[in-house]
Amino acid sequence: MTMRFGLSLTLENIAMHIGATLHGDPELRVHNIATLEQARPGSLSFLSHKKYRRHLSSTQATAVILSPEFIPLCPVAALAHPIPYLAYAKVTSLLYPVPNITAGIHSSAVIDPTAHIDATAWVGPLSVIGARVKIAAAVFIGPNCIIDADCDIGNNSRLIARVTLCQHTSIGCRVTIHPGAVIGADGFGFAKDGDQWLRITQIGRTRIGNDVEIGANTTIDRGSLDDTVIADGVILDNLIQIGHNVHVGENTAIVACTGISGSTKIGRNCLLGGNVGIAGHLDIGDGVCLAAGSRVTRSLQGPGSYGGVLPVDVEPLWRRNVARLRHLDDLARRVRQLERLIHNESKSGQAEENNDDATPDI
Amino acid sequence: MTMRFGLSLTLENIAMHIGATLHGDPELRVHNIATLEQARPGSLSFLSHKKYRRHLSSTQATAVILSPEFIPLCPVAALAHPIPYLAYAKVTSLLYPVPNITAGIHSSAVIDPTAHIDATAWVGPLSVIGARVKIAAAVFIGPNCIIDADCDIGNNSRLIARVTLCQHTSIGCRVTIHPGAVIGADGFGFAKDGDQWLRITQIGRTRIGNDVEIGANTTIDRGSLDDTVIADGVILDNLIQIGHNVHVGENTAIVACTGISGSTKIGRNCLLGGNVGIAGHLDIGDGVCLAAGSRVTRSLQGPGSYGGVLPVDVEPLWRRNVARLRHLDDLARRVRQLERLIHNESKSGQAEENNDDATPDI
Amino acid sequence: MTMRFGLSLTLENIAMHIGATLHGDPELRVHNIATLEQARPGSLSFLSHKKYRRHLSSTQATAVILSPEFIPLCPVAALAHPIPYLAYAKVTSLLYPVPNITAGIHSSAVIDPTAHIDATAWVGPLSVIGARVKIAAAVFIGPNCIIDADCDIGNNSRLIARVTLCQHTSIGCRVTIHPGAVIGADGFGFAKDGDQWLRITQIGRTRIGNDVEIGANTTIDRGSLDDTVIADGVILDNLIQIGHNVHVGENTAIVACTGISGSTKIGRNCLLGGNVGIAGHLDIGDGVCLAAGSRVTRSLQGPGSYGGVLPVDVEPLWRRNVARLRHLDDLARRVRQLERLIHNESKSGQAEENNDDATPDI
Repeated sequence: MTMRFGLSLTLENIAMHIGATLHGDPELRVHNIATLEQARPGSLSFLSHKKYRRHLSSTQATAVILSPEFIPLCPVAALAHPIPYLAYAKVTSLLYPVPNITAGIHSSAVIDPTAHIDATAWVGPLSVIGARVKIAAAVFIGPNCIIDADCDIGNNSRLIARVTLCQHTSIGCRVTIHPGAVIGADGFGFAKDGDQWLRITQIGRTRIGNDVEIGANTTIDRGSLDDTVIADGVILDNLIQIGHNVHVGENTAIVACTGISGSTKIGRNCLLGGNVGIAGHLDIGDGVCLAAGSRVTRSLQGPGSYGGVLPVDVEPLWRRNVARLRHLDDLARRVRQLERLIHNESKSGQAEENNDDATPDI
Repeated sequence: MTMRFGLSLTLENIAMHIGATLHGDPELRVHNIATLEQARPGSLSFLSHKKYRRHLSSTQATAVILSPEFIPLCPVAALAHPIPYLAYAKVTSLLYPVPNITAGIHSSAVIDPTAHIDATAWVGPLSVIGARVKIAAAVFIGPNCIIDADCDIGNNSRLIARVTLCQHTSIGCRVTIHPGAVIGADGFGFAKDGDQWLRITQIGRTRIGNDVEIGANTTIDRGSLDDTVIADGVILDNLIQIGHNVHVGENTAIVACTGISGSTKIGRNCLLGGNVGIAGHLDIGDGVCLAAGSRVTRSLQGPGSYGGVLPVDVEPLWRRNVARLRHLDDLARRVRQLERLIHNESKSGQAEENNDDATPDI
Repeated sequence: MTMRFGLSLTLENIAMHIGATLHGDPELRVHNIATLEQARPGSLSFLSHKKYRRHLSSTQATAVILSPEFIPLCPVAALAHPIPYLAYAKVTSLLYPVPNITAGIHSSAVIDPTAHIDATAWVGPLSVIGARVKIAAAVFIGPNCIIDADCDIGNNSRLIARVTLCQHTSIGCRVTIHPGAVIGADGFGFAKDGDQWLRITQIGRTRIGNDVEIGANTTIDRGSLDDTVIADGVILDNLIQIGHNVHVGENTAIVACTGISGSTKIGRNCLLGGNVGIAGHLDIGDGVCLAAGSRVTRSLQGPGSYGGVLPVDVEPLWRRNVARLRHLDDLARRVRQLERLIHNESKSGQAEENNDDATPDI
């Protein structure tokens, strides 16, 4: 654990920024964020889950963000906010702001003469900018990125490093893309020609909306005829595969290692757990939550929660079936026993009858 | 949806190229491909699935590729072909041809003096070509590729961008490799030395056949002693992991997010759905189809279809078992009920016997 | 299959190095390693699994590493070792040593003036070294790597090629990282702000211990507040996702395509099969083995074996349940039959009673 120091800010400043009510000295300063346990004087901490409440009384933090009802229990300055986790999120970018970008183009970058790069943008070392590319104001292109021909990137977007945008990809504003992501590669489109596979030239594009986040080594294929679309506010974790022609709706969040097959439509405000697999040509409604590891082979209505490892089902039923699975061996034995019992009973029933037949002789 | 324009071609020219029978004016020209719904005058469209048939009568396309039986229903020029989807695949590369490559080596590429690069090949900006590498005629090496020492690449292959070939990798002719793919990295080979892992130097190579396609961020490890082999005509989607010593047979197709463990042999003409996991040292026969999400822990005979999330089984049996899973909770309740019933019956049976015993007294 | 030649070494030299007892001419030389079947004169082979024993009598190898009890069966020189597989691992690095690195910085690399690179280290072509980076003795940085600001790399570590270390990442000594790996990218941390996702600035670092191996295209996120930690001796395969704040204990091995969600702690000496998915905030004990494909949604005590596709369970129970699954359809039919039988019996029982009632009348 290394403690990283951010800006030094007064509690008054912070309270104003995050919309919290301050209980304590407004002139106190903090310069880093830490958990209740690891906070030291100068740290700002937060209490967002009751299971950490036991650490509140002994925290060494200078101030704590918490829900109003915990103010009486807080031994130090308190910043009261109805949703402490959201307040914490807001304060992280206040104390640790993204550095302002230096405008310019690194001398080692390779820029096509037909590209248009805004004077306020930055293109990092060893990046390659192709023909007719348009890069808007305040865009940050980190080292080793490839922006192939006919791409455009909206203002204030940040390609951290080693991002690949294939031809015709369009990126909105305020988008963050992490290293190794490949956006707009050819979709997996082939026709059978006898035993062989004939490649179908992929003509559609990939269009990424505004305020989207794309994780490391995630791949999003270009459309075959229509476009692949990631709508505004979508957040994608690492190592996700999005097939061609997929449409992901506004503010949907997708956790790592998930794969979405071609032409499937995911609604808005969905939440897909990690390692979800969704077959192609399906329609997943708005507000669908999928448990981690879910395998989806049919369209799902939203809103609603579905799971899981087995073919998805509505959640309470799925959970019960999964619970039963842990006792399947026991269940099978019990059925065997019932069969024996019934088999024997009918046998012993016959035996008794014989006995009964015999008894009169005694 | 953005409509990308390709070449402008006459229907006569297209019919000849794709082997279709033209019903309409041979001089008509089209310059893009679109779905029946989105086609406009100048568009070529196609009908390959009956569910889109309802869009045929109202299409604004200039011409439609379709099966001969639909000619009477086609309101515009028709290109009749027995397999419209294959004809569509052929026409995509006709209207949107891969641009001819410019021969040469970009000034920013770093080339080892012992490498041999054919005069008709292209090496893009910021690519690195190692010692003794051999690059054949008309090969396209996009920006930011790494071709490490002792690799060879057959003619007309295309490394789109940011492809990594580790040492001793061999690539056939007409191979396409998408960005982020890593071919020939060390396999995961270690021996336990007490509590610690001792690395086994990987001596085998990776050999990729002709006409292979390798998706974005896919990884194919080099062999430990023998080679890892991807045979001719194999198509691999994105984010696939192929372990060391694996052999994938001709024309097999593997969908995204699939992992194949070391030393497993996959036959020819197999079709592996997305997110399949196959254990090591198995033998999967020719013509095996695996449902998406299948977990394979034993060798499988081909041809045949197998699934799925549970340990794989032949398909009809597997499908029935999975269907039962959705009713497992119900099944368990019914067994409980049977047990109670039988328990009570035998109890009440005894009671009746006692009664019977008793009755004589009356 | 191509036979790669290594150094030419005497059996005496090899026996000494790997701690084997030599039975044969100490002056004999070998120059490559091959399986018993593919070995030729000049090859060293090994017998580590009894299923290959049948190839021993006919091998053309010059010498074979084997367990002492097989010496009488060995037709050629023998190197007896109690654990032949470990001896084989040792001999691979003896015959095929990692080449000594050339010290220096390639002229095409882009180095921040504040970086400190040891004079014995190598920085390859087109690599980017950021501000305040510290690179220790004998470190090898292959082509096209990105070492962002404030990273440090311990001595003798090797970044094969195209490795990305994001800001503040710390790498131990003797670590090997394969192409495409992304270490220290932002974790997937967001707070809901109404319908939208607000990014939480990730302040923690990623710390990689000594003697760690990280596979191609694997991603390890930086911590949110605390650090993400990979302890000494851990080996990670390709395409693995490690979420923020995860802690992986000493000498744990993780096979490809596995995903570990944020804040989960994996113990020491664990073995995670391929395609394992582990939920967040769990505690997996020391010495836990997880079958490939396991889905883990609760903390697990170690040591112990758990599996698998279904929610994990202790192994023997899990294996039995999974075996039952293959017969679930049959089980359901049997229950139906029991129900019918009992239903009919009670009906026919009543009928018989009626008969009984009737018989007296006869």
